Amino acid sequence: MNTYKSHVEKSECPIAHALDVIGDRWTLIIIREMMFMGKHEFGEFLEAPEKISTNILADRLKKLSSLGIIDFIEHPQNKTKKLYYLTDIGVGLIDVMVEVILWVDKYLSTAPSPIIENIKNHTPEFIEKTKKNIQSWNEKNL
Amino acid sequence: MNTYKSHVEKSECPIAHALDVIGDRWTLIIIREMMFMGKHEFGEFLEAPEKISTNILADRLKKLSSLGIIDFIEHPQNKTKKLYYLTDIGVGLIDVMVEVILWVDKYLSTAPSPIIENIKNHTPEFIEKTKKNIQSWNEKNL
Repeated sequence: MNTYKSHVEKSECPIAHALDVIGDRWTLIIIREMMFMGKHEFGEFLEAPEKISTNILADRLKKLSSLGIIDFIEHPQNKTKKLYYLTDIGVGLIDVMVEVILWVDKYLSTAPSPIIENIKNHTPEFIEKTKKNIQSWNEKNL
Repeated sequence: MNTYKSHVEKSECPIAHALDVIGDRWTLIIIREMMFMGKHEFGEFLEAPEKISTNILADRLKKLSSLGIIDFIEHPQNKTKKLYYLTDIGVGLIDVMVEVILWVDKYLSTAPSPIIENIKNHTPEFIEKTKKNIQSWNEKNL
């Protein structure tokens, strides 16, 4: 592992780099809402069961946009609203999210869930289907 | 995606559950130090390039222990010190960590690195080798 160590000392560690971007509970909850729940609007994110506050939500959406993980368009029915969506960089986080789900299921979760069973037994298919859902929204709206 | 949605509304979302545990920059930096850098001591964690403060470090080590992600033994050379190590739950986070590294490499990182190339081209072998390093420390010390 010494070579990895010397790499970390020479340049920034990729995990530290990632955590600057996504190492925050609320940031990943917003990404979850967009990735798996098909949410696109500020008001929809507020409805997430974790009850994100408006100021944190506004802050994290701004941060995610500036980092290129999400982007937005004007809402077609309401010029004062925005429709947020995941960019390719954001969609690329699906493998991280799925590994998080599988880790929780394996080590922390106790309640059985047919959805988790599906993700566990058909991981590549679940990832493919989620990406297709996102792509089909993008094709219709962007 | 509606089935997933109804699951999330009925019980706690696994991503939210995970973020309660690991959704924090410092927590994952400590796990990184233990997992890839072979660090085990309080003083060693303080030396990480991100410069974690002693009070945050103490808090996160306590949290990680109470969650069963890490555990500790008395330092064989110094009774006032502890040796921290990853439990099976902690080691199970390696797939999440590796996906984070691969995501950063694919979308954020620009500087080429032989170590990242190695992780990218030999992911299962890298995971296996890391697990073996951890296991061999455990066999010697626990």
